[in-house]
Amino acid sequence: MSDTPNRGILHLVPNTLDSHTTGALPPIEAVLPLGVIRTAARLEHWLVENAKSARAFLKRIDAIESLVRPLQAISVIELPRPQKGAREAAPNFDAPRWLAPTLKGYDMGLLSEAGLPAVADPGASAVEAAHALGVTVIALPGPSALALALAASGHNGQRFAFVGYLPTNEASRAARIRELEELSRRQQQTQLMIETPYRNAALLAALIQHLQGDTRLAVSCGLTLPGGWTRSERVAAWRSRPSQLPSDVPAVFSLDAGVAAAARN
Amino acid sequence: MSDTPNRGILHLVPNTLDSHTTGALPPIEAVLPLGVIRTAARLEHWLVENAKSARAFLKRIDAIESLVRPLQAISVIELPRPQKGAREAAPNFDAPRWLAPTLKGYDMGLLSEAGLPAVADPGASAVEAAHALGVTVIALPGPSALALALAASGHNGQRFAFVGYLPTNEASRAARIRELEELSRRQQQTQLMIETPYRNAALLAALIQHLQGDTRLAVSCGLTLPGGWTRSERVAAWRSRPSQLPSDVPAVFSLDAGVAAAARN
Repeated sequence: MSDTPNRGILHLVPNTLDSHTTGALPPIEAVLPLGVIRTAARLEHWLVENAKSARAFLKRIDAIESLVRPLQAISVIELPRPQKGAREAAPNFDAPRWLAPTLKGYDMGLLSEAGLPAVADPGASAVEAAHALGVTVIALPGPSALALALAASGHNGQRFAFVGYLPTNEASRAARIRELEELSRRQQQTQLMIETPYRNAALLAALIQHLQGDTRLAVSCGLTLPGGWTRSERVAAWRSRPSQLPSDVPAVFSLDAGVAAAARN
Repeated sequence: MSDTPNRGILHLVPNTLDSHTTGALPPIEAVLPLGVIRTAARLEHWLVENAKSARAFLKRIDAIESLVRPLQAISVIELPRPQKGAREAAPNFDAPRWLAPTLKGYDMGLLSEAGLPAVADPGASAVEAAHALGVTVIALPGPSALALALAASGHNGQRFAFVGYLPTNEASRAARIRELEELSRRQQQTQLMIETPYRNAALLAALIQHLQGDTRLAVSCGLTLPGGWTRSERVAAWRSRPSQLPSDVPAVFSLDAGVAAAARN
């Protein structure tokens, strides 16, 4: 909400969830609303997680709705950032410099590599800075891997937490898994987590090993993509019939040790 | 993920976030992907939160992509459920009965009144039952008020929790607000909550009263709608310049007492 009507708007533009796909990409209108595609097509100034993938995104937008200028004439600036999930401070974020176009009245787009920017993804510092500068922020609807995985799990969607990445050290990870299970049971709170794809199988193995047999465990792979799937069963069933997880596709993991949904809502 | 290929698929279909709107509704393709509209148009069997609003939704779909049958010939069944956010058990959920079309090979749609079904909304029991019956579940991308509000807040999107409704009793609510603030600070975890619209102003007043001045507080109103807005500032700023909240529009509240985003990602 802005008191400074001469400023541009910062639009948070959802990306598709197929950035890891090596084959032919599905048409972008299968997963993004036309209203979002039209807004993206008219933005000349972008703050992005990755410039190369942002330009690929804009080419897919252009195929549906012509960009307001040739792609080469569109400003695409990368956000400074540490590794995903890292807690260290970023290099000094010079907000007025990065958001300069909005201060001159131009609308800007914020784009991450997949899904909604600033949700399990970089961008929150730009959004925070925008608010501080009196720049209006509008989040545009589109795919959110966490929300989709939670919906598809059938786990408690009235209370849930996203806890990010688990420790990679084996003993710390086991302790964290048991802590999350206890938290889920005590608070009736679903726990969502992610992992870098090459560690998908290791995280699943650890969850199956350390969770109790009657805890509900769900994994979503390739959300919104052909061939994507969600499996949601009790840990005991995962144990007796293991799943292979791909090592090159993002997955979302969800555990629910609370009361079953049928008895809840 | 199903071992029973003759079963239909349960599609979780996102609804728009404008169900409370009394005026002219924006075109549905502004907020829903064409791929989702096309899938919805071909489904003959629906499980829904509210039959009347589901039929209104299908009429808007029909305006973009003709429904596979006349609306009157489409099966729209309401989910049994208690009040939103209630924790009591639902009337016995007879899953095989409600999901019978999928057992005969027909695809079904699950639809709530706003946003993604089963996320801060009914539907999880149907999803859980579908998995138990070996029915494939696919969540389709679209607006999620919680994800959009979190993105637009600039609050920590690497760790967050949705805690549902706060107590309405004044003393319990004050205690819960302080507990959530302490949790947010200790765990570096954003806390998201909702309220029934006529209590929006009361919740905001309680948050402003009981949170510490340097805690970040955001409110999103009318997400995806013309005139929608997000305000995100420290509590001290909310105190010195109060906002009026509408009593008939859903709002999402977010608090972040952790380290600021600029120092985090």
